[in-house]
Amino acid sequence: MMLYTHGQHAQVGTFAHYLVSYADALARDRERFMECYGRVNLNPLGAGPVGGTSVGVNRRRTTELLGFDGLVENSIDATSGRDWAVETAAACAILMGNLSRVATDLLDWSAVEYGYIELADEYASSSSIMPQKKNPSTLELIRGKTGEVYGCLCELMTMVKGVNSGYYQDLQQTKIPLWRCLDTTRTSLEVMTGIVSTLKVNGERMREMLDGSLVAAVELAEMMVTDAGLSFREAYKLVAALVRGTLERGGRLSELTSKEINDVSMGVLGKAVEVTDSMITEATDPMASLMRRRSRGSPNPDEVKRMLEERRETLKEFASELDARRRAVDVALEALRKIVATYVS
Amino acid sequence: MMLYTHGQHAQVGTFAHYLVSYADALARDRERFMECYGRVNLNPLGAGPVGGTSVGVNRRRTTELLGFDGLVENSIDATSGRDWAVETAAACAILMGNLSRVATDLLDWSAVEYGYIELADEYASSSSIMPQKKNPSTLELIRGKTGEVYGCLCELMTMVKGVNSGYYQDLQQTKIPLWRCLDTTRTSLEVMTGIVSTLKVNGERMREMLDGSLVAAVELAEMMVTDAGLSFREAYKLVAALVRGTLERGGRLSELTSKEINDVSMGVLGKAVEVTDSMITEATDPMASLMRRRSRGSPNPDEVKRMLEERRETLKEFASELDARRRAVDVALEALRKIVATYVS
Amino acid sequence: MMLYTHGQHAQVGTFAHYLVSYADALARDRERFMECYGRVNLNPLGAGPVGGTSVGVNRRRTTELLGFDGLVENSIDATSGRDWAVETAAACAILMGNLSRVATDLLDWSAVEYGYIELADEYASSSSIMPQKKNPSTLELIRGKTGEVYGCLCELMTMVKGVNSGYYQDLQQTKIPLWRCLDTTRTSLEVMTGIVSTLKVNGERMREMLDGSLVAAVELAEMMVTDAGLSFREAYKLVAALVRGTLERGGRLSELTSKEINDVSMGVLGKAVEVTDSMITEATDPMASLMRRRSRGSPNPDEVKRMLEERRETLKEFASELDARRRAVDVALEALRKIVATYVS
Amino acid sequence: MMLYTHGQHAQVGTFAHYLVSYADALARDRERFMECYGRVNLNPLGAGPVGGTSVGVNRRRTTELLGFDGLVENSIDATSGRDWAVETAAACAILMGNLSRVATDLLDWSAVEYGYIELADEYASSSSIMPQKKNPSTLELIRGKTGEVYGCLCELMTMVKGVNSGYYQDLQQTKIPLWRCLDTTRTSLEVMTGIVSTLKVNGERMREMLDGSLVAAVELAEMMVTDAGLSFREAYKLVAALVRGTLERGGRLSELTSKEINDVSMGVLGKAVEVTDSMITEATDPMASLMRRRSRGSPNPDEVKRMLEERRETLKEFASELDARRRAVDVALEALRKIVATYVS
Repeated sequence: MMLYTHGQHAQVGTFAHYLVSYADALARDRERFMECYGRVNLNPLGAGPVGGTSVGVNRRRTTELLGFDGLVENSIDATSGRDWAVETAAACAILMGNLSRVATDLLDWSAVEYGYIELADEYASSSSIMPQKKNPSTLELIRGKTGEVYGCLCELMTMVKGVNSGYYQDLQQTKIPLWRCLDTTRTSLEVMTGIVSTLKVNGERMREMLDGSLVAAVELAEMMVTDAGLSFREAYKLVAALVRGTLERGGRLSELTSKEINDVSMGVLGKAVEVTDSMITEATDPMASLMRRRSRGSPNPDEVKRMLEERRETLKEFASELDARRRAVDVALEALRKIVATYVS
Repeated sequence: MMLYTHGQHAQVGTFAHYLVSYADALARDRERFMECYGRVNLNPLGAGPVGGTSVGVNRRRTTELLGFDGLVENSIDATSGRDWAVETAAACAILMGNLSRVATDLLDWSAVEYGYIELADEYASSSSIMPQKKNPSTLELIRGKTGEVYGCLCELMTMVKGVNSGYYQDLQQTKIPLWRCLDTTRTSLEVMTGIVSTLKVNGERMREMLDGSLVAAVELAEMMVTDAGLSFREAYKLVAALVRGTLERGGRLSELTSKEINDVSMGVLGKAVEVTDSMITEATDPMASLMRRRSRGSPNPDEVKRMLEERRETLKEFASELDARRRAVDVALEALRKIVATYVS
Repeated sequence: MMLYTHGQHAQVGTFAHYLVSYADALARDRERFMECYGRVNLNPLGAGPVGGTSVGVNRRRTTELLGFDGLVENSIDATSGRDWAVETAAACAILMGNLSRVATDLLDWSAVEYGYIELADEYASSSSIMPQKKNPSTLELIRGKTGEVYGCLCELMTMVKGVNSGYYQDLQQTKIPLWRCLDTTRTSLEVMTGIVSTLKVNGERMREMLDGSLVAAVELAEMMVTDAGLSFREAYKLVAALVRGTLERGGRLSELTSKEINDVSMGVLGKAVEVTDSMITEATDPMASLMRRRSRGSPNPDEVKRMLEERRETLKEFASELDARRRAVDVALEALRKIVATYVS
Repeated sequence: MMLYTHGQHAQVGTFAHYLVSYADALARDRERFMECYGRVNLNPLGAGPVGGTSVGVNRRRTTELLGFDGLVENSIDATSGRDWAVETAAACAILMGNLSRVATDLLDWSAVEYGYIELADEYASSSSIMPQKKNPSTLELIRGKTGEVYGCLCELMTMVKGVNSGYYQDLQQTKIPLWRCLDTTRTSLEVMTGIVSTLKVNGERMREMLDGSLVAAVELAEMMVTDAGLSFREAYKLVAALVRGTLERGGRLSELTSKEINDVSMGVLGKAVEVTDSMITEATDPMASLMRRRSRGSPNPDEVKRMLEERRETLKEFASELDARRRAVDVALEALRKIVATYVS
């Protein structure tokens, strides 16, 4: 597929490679949540109003019974610290910022003008007034909901700003934006998962756009550096002239011949350039140019395959790590239930 | 010193215990920065404009040479991902939120009405129009600067919202707010460190405030639970009546006698309560009541001492971890300089 | 009462004068809402999906029937413009910023350390654990709710950022934060009105704080300029020395004699200063110093009385302006109901 | 040109009509600034530190001399009120929100896939690596700068939140974000003005997109209501069927015949529909369908012409209003200069 920078055609890529880029962004989001959880799953119980208590409370025991990973030790910190809440909302906001970008990409690509993808019917809506329309409303809603989550973060940051230590009723407001942003983030993730797993990719249309484009220009320039011994400066100058010529003629870069390139090179650089017709074909054929990409993390299909396999492995590790955390809480609560039952009976 | 909730007298505490509460908050801030650094110190070089390059670039080698911990692998992610920048600003904003609360506490406590602390002259300013004033301007500036850092985060979140993948000039704005919030956060931390290490604590005034207060009420109530066998509900009711009586009389809780308490208890609870005069003394003497605190993380001086010792140890670990990170970058850059010198000569 | 700058004693003022300052801030808030209403109460109906309609719709007639003040004319603007919503939230946020400052003032002043005011019982809450406490929770909630309204504004600003023209589902999110911030702002205003109209002002405590303070310093300095012919620079220097002396002695400025001042002046300025004892008394007596204030808008009781009278008049105008707007909508809706009834029957 | 909703083809419009929609949005922005100026151009001088002064200051005279429109009367309000600064930043932020949407529209439309407009060379940049690119960087920068202005508003709102009345050093931070957001907003407006006045509109490409689209569907449906007596529900159902048929065939709506429509109507509605071939032509010809638009504010060229003429008149009024304000300040400053000269000589 076409890759864009500044909204303009830039290079040949693939949809799988695009998806990997957000798999990686979401993996960072996951890391943030796991690390944040380590600061959230701590026990504030037993801190008294603000300065502890003379009643005998075994805080380690309640920590264990309630399935916490540890203690918010200092009693002032336990009653009035809220940075863990702001951090949770920040993790949600950063994730939503990432999703808002995917949503915008997919919205654009489901426009007639791009036509790269089509949402499944269950994720699109029809128009109340325009019979021919299929609106990608779910993507728009995810993008709009980014504002809600940003707003929750803003609320929590404002709430703590300049508030004295020791519990203040201001902090009662913590929970509302916290639940709201967690709910919205989870729902947005679920909907996005549904959208991506059901969308129809129109490979033919993607290929068509590449064929009619000037996107081979970078490949041509790079080839002149790697295979024809030009400096990048020279290659850039020459290719710019070739592009101008092609635009004026209304043709395609793939129709260039080695003779034409030589002629232009004589005019622009004052010297010949050793380019064969097969080199031109290779540089202007989308698939060939993908295969030529050598840098780690590029859309070269072999490289993408490797990345996908590694991500699949990582995903399994993520799942088992999450399971372990869930199980720890479940085990603690189950034990607690039994102990409570003992006391009750 | 007095501990407050809702801006009202709540319990007896100590200034050292207060400082530990923010040592712990700042330790969480440090954790956030260290974890964030792991996502920031990654090498985006070699991703080409957006889709990699066919020029032979060894990305692992450049990663090593430039002192990065690893690679931003996917080329789209490397060129257009900015969640690491938003996260950095979020870490700064959360820290500043914490500092803004310390600043407000210290501002209040340096008011004549509290008089608990006095800033060193180098951290205060005189008034241009009022000769008698010593203004805690540095604290006010730190609190005001919180807005600047919040604003940087808001800017970065807005910048990425809904921007397509692939580099866009919007992202050029990343650096300005990023440097600004890092600079302001560092300066604020340095100034706060200076303020706290040079301020004068007025222990006499703190003690005076405790003596004249009703803060012993919670201690009395807890003592009636732990030592006199009342339920907390009963204790609460009884103490509330004792407080009302004391307020009406204009006296102090420490002047209560066991006889009076018994009389009030008969009236309020319909039963006597076994309280001795020495129990009353112990509950209403600030130091005694501190010593009675048994919960982990309380301002009991022994407990505070233990916490301070542990934090000192942790601080050493923090310092050596930071040193290691700094050294890793220095070593890489030194190696790079040597290699460059080889090529040049 | 004491007026503060930098949290430190600054000048003598009055509580009425303080209230006028926020009457004026709220009057600006009211202006913002009235002006914003002029941009909100406009009719978008009849704009079709985005480009108008060929169905005969008389937009002027629907404007009149629905009680709008005018038309959002351009059909793209009518369907996708949302700046009016952001502006409404901004007006709410600015107002809440003002309320958050009143809340902080009143919170501080209801602390034992200040003791200037006491909230009525219905606006305070008792502590679940500390029998002696009366918590000004309503003030804390208003301050905390500032975050909610700031968050709504942040949400709306984020929502519109970078969204294409023409209706998008993102904009469906407009209503939720809009209603939320309007509701919270109205409730906060109502609660604050209740708090202020029922609070008990402790004038004696206010006076006591003034008497023990160094706040007469500015008055003394100004008097030396206006009545004793010193430059402000000289007066400042002299008074600073007098304040230092008073602090060292532990006395009060009102105990200064003209002889002492002269002695200090000889030492500090190298010349005598013509000050009489009655001048000192006048400068150091809080009420006298209030009466000496001559600048428009100062807490001089005559000036405050004038301001209060003018605000009362303005308030009547505000009320009748609001009434007129309400009536206009009511009249339109009543007329509409009749017309609908005609069609139905 | 095509008008879009949900990023999908919606109705026929015109570029002039699009520009009018933002002329109207910017007119609201202008109103906000003019009203805000009325609250900003007020004189705080003469309020003393916080409680006025006993020095004889004629505040009305300084108001006049400095070219202010009036007084911030109450001395507490004058020294510590900052809502006017937050409001100024809010006006900037709302305007930038509007500009960010224009920027996104124009960015999309300068993509090859739309090809509706082309930026003048002086507002585009070339690629450092891709010779064929013309990047609309100025539009991206304006969109990115929206974040900066939002950030300034966030900073100012945070700064005032919960700060006590009476001057605090926190407020010193007012000026930095205020100047920054005013500068950025002015520059963004200037650049956008340059972009819009120099861009090349590709009318042919716009027309081409209309011809190949299903956008006539709404017109057809409306025509069946206004000219063929169907209810909108019936018309919607019928047109949806016609669209489906056309899509399956791969044809265009303009190729429909009255016979086909009748056949489909019999199948879908169970009745014939009185449609002539000339009616179909009219509904499916973009220009004809524009001429049929009757609602006020629609892209009907006559209507757009009227709107443009009215806006031109309004623009003149705006300019003379702005001139008057500027002149008032100039006159005051000139008078002040003369008076100062008198005193000096």
